Amino acid sequence: MQDQTTAGTLFGAMRANPPLVQCITNFVAMNIAANVMLAAGASPAMVHAEEEAAEFAAISAALTINIGTLSAEWLVGMLSAAQSARQAGRPWVLDPVAHYATAFRRRAVAQLLDLQPTVIRGNASEIIALAGGISHGQGVDSRDPVELAEQSARQLAERHGCVVAVTGVTDFVTDGHKARRIEGGSPLMPQVTALGCSLTCLVGAFVATAPDNPFDATAAALAVFAVAGEQAGTVADGPGSFSWRFLDALAALDAEALTAKARIMLA
Amino acid sequence: MQDQTTAGTLFGAMRANPPLVQCITNFVAMNIAANVMLAAGASPAMVHAEEEAAEFAAISAALTINIGTLSAEWLVGMLSAAQSARQAGRPWVLDPVAHYATAFRRRAVAQLLDLQPTVIRGNASEIIALAGGISHGQGVDSRDPVELAEQSARQLAERHGCVVAVTGVTDFVTDGHKARRIEGGSPLMPQVTALGCSLTCLVGAFVATAPDNPFDATAAALAVFAVAGEQAGTVADGPGSFSWRFLDALAALDAEALTAKARIMLA
Amino acid sequence: MQDQTTAGTLFGAMRANPPLVQCITNFVAMNIAANVMLAAGASPAMVHAEEEAAEFAAISAALTINIGTLSAEWLVGMLSAAQSARQAGRPWVLDPVAHYATAFRRRAVAQLLDLQPTVIRGNASEIIALAGGISHGQGVDSRDPVELAEQSARQLAERHGCVVAVTGVTDFVTDGHKARRIEGGSPLMPQVTALGCSLTCLVGAFVATAPDNPFDATAAALAVFAVAGEQAGTVADGPGSFSWRFLDALAALDAEALTAKARIMLA
Repeated sequence: MQDQTTAGTLFGAMRANPPLVQCITNFVAMNIAANVMLAAGASPAMVHAEEEAAEFAAISAALTINIGTLSAEWLVGMLSAAQSARQAGRPWVLDPVAHYATAFRRRAVAQLLDLQPTVIRGNASEIIALAGGISHGQGVDSRDPVELAEQSARQLAERHGCVVAVTGVTDFVTDGHKARRIEGGSPLMPQVTALGCSLTCLVGAFVATAPDNPFDATAAALAVFAVAGEQAGTVADGPGSFSWRFLDALAALDAEALTAKARIMLA
Repeated sequence: MQDQTTAGTLFGAMRANPPLVQCITNFVAMNIAANVMLAAGASPAMVHAEEEAAEFAAISAALTINIGTLSAEWLVGMLSAAQSARQAGRPWVLDPVAHYATAFRRRAVAQLLDLQPTVIRGNASEIIALAGGISHGQGVDSRDPVELAEQSARQLAERHGCVVAVTGVTDFVTDGHKARRIEGGSPLMPQVTALGCSLTCLVGAFVATAPDNPFDATAAALAVFAVAGEQAGTVADGPGSFSWRFLDALAALDAEALTAKARIMLA
Repeated sequence: MQDQTTAGTLFGAMRANPPLVQCITNFVAMNIAANVMLAAGASPAMVHAEEEAAEFAAISAALTINIGTLSAEWLVGMLSAAQSARQAGRPWVLDPVAHYATAFRRRAVAQLLDLQPTVIRGNASEIIALAGGISHGQGVDSRDPVELAEQSARQLAERHGCVVAVTGVTDFVTDGHKARRIEGGSPLMPQVTALGCSLTCLVGAFVATAPDNPFDATAAALAVFAVAGEQAGTVADGPGSFSWRFLDALAALDAEALTAKARIMLA
């Protein structure tokens, strides 16, 4: 129950003091990610231009970077924002969408990794490939089970001194030493685009709330998604209804319910 | 009842002859803003590139500009579109999202203000800061009540010879001389991202319908949102269901219902 | 029944082996198009940057290009992706959104047509104008009935050696010789933004599945939309509820139901 209580406490603290999170995300995720953040109680701002990304990172409580619809111009903004966050001592989260697909993405992710993300969140194919393994990802979709990515996640976390979260049927989170599995969610979640990207933003909201404890913060964010996703999944008739029911479930969730329903297990 | 009747008449006229409105808006708002416009009966077109923004403004009945996800390239398109609209005698609406947050935004808004918007729509924090006051906005979210922004709105309207709308729990609209408050809406509205941005586009549709009367046109657009928002709020279970119920309510609203239900008060 | 059976077979084959489709689409359509693709069973990836568009086209099963929110930078990516798809022998689909509205769009579409799209999908106003006729389109909205565009579609298909699909109340598809009409859908569909753009992506998924038979593949994609749209339309209360009900209907549709319910007629 320790982990569940911590998750509930962090969620309550986040809602009580909504953190401003700079989300540099992709065009597919923009709207749903902002709605997920608002439903969960955070204060998102989508700011990416090189003219202001660094300045904005310095006034934000956390930064998240997702390379889903990457371009050369945006990469400049991403790098300067990550540098600024780092200088200001703010946590930042990396979502290396389909980084294995093209040379451009591989180079971009290498540059971003040099700026020491606090947390990396990806699907199994992305995490396996990022650790140097052979993944079966197709485009932006994972084709590997989370279990196969656990060892890669541990290596990656140790190598970069960060927290790594692999999300899928059962999520996995590790800082290279300790690790947890988070159960919940719904089989409908992979049928709704950009929920993983939205979760990356929510991880940003939690590490903003507990910058000194990114491991528990990440586990709490995953637990919020797992519980709200499970609730929405029991009443949804398909991916269309899942989407809005998930936002309703997120908004209705509170610290007590999270503590009661989260399933965070030692791994 | 004069104001309610005017709002109903303008709404009927807009629906009878759907105006083409060029919406330069942000990546978060793109989809919901277009859906709001279609549900309300307008004809939106999201056109921003510097290669065509001015040309398109000249064939549109109105233009709206929102700096939510600003970049240097888009600013060029915004400025040329606003200049073109002005030369063609078309109304245009400015939405200065989080203009106080960075130097880049402040400069951009100063340049846009020089091109004499017909209407400025913002939240309380944005309007207070734009008038030179001290606001408490955090990122893109207002942290000030509308009442505190009324004086700023009057000053701004007089200074720039335009209509200023401040939206929040109770909306306020003024041309610097006369003013109205519009009641309605739902506490769920701030939990749905980009509804304010979408309202800016709808203001564009109304000033396109009544270019010689931007004050009543703006009040009518706010009243449409207030009535549809209130109706959706009574049946929604959270921000997810509010979103689609709001679009359904917008599409079902007609001139008679608007006249009967709008609450527009002298201020 | 031949056409219905073929549509059902292609749908089953697509779902059984989800094709990776590179979708270069507009900012309004990004999210709904990805959700439509996932609900239908395809694997979409929104990749557009000039640094990677061509490389990604070479690993994708099909490419779709939509100029809805065109810019000079994106046009570079579009052209290189289309060239790459062509060199790799992969089918690609063109959606010439509002190409008649500005000189920039007209030039862009001329360049894209030179790269020999496998399929062109548009509304009636777009197809009429593309064939050199006089259309009544306003911005991105068609103001012409599909029937008036049938002759234009035949000419265009012959001239460019491609399949042309005109979508509206009753869809029309032709390769310049044979032709079909597809009935179904809902009057609510034009009130939901970017459904046509999403259909373009789905056509990409079907031509990926049957690259040697783009005519039947396109008819099958249109039939999927027509059947799911009709089902959603019978239970929706407005454009907001139509949107998610359509995704639910798409996800629930299978090959047998498509074969039983599709209305594809000789034209």
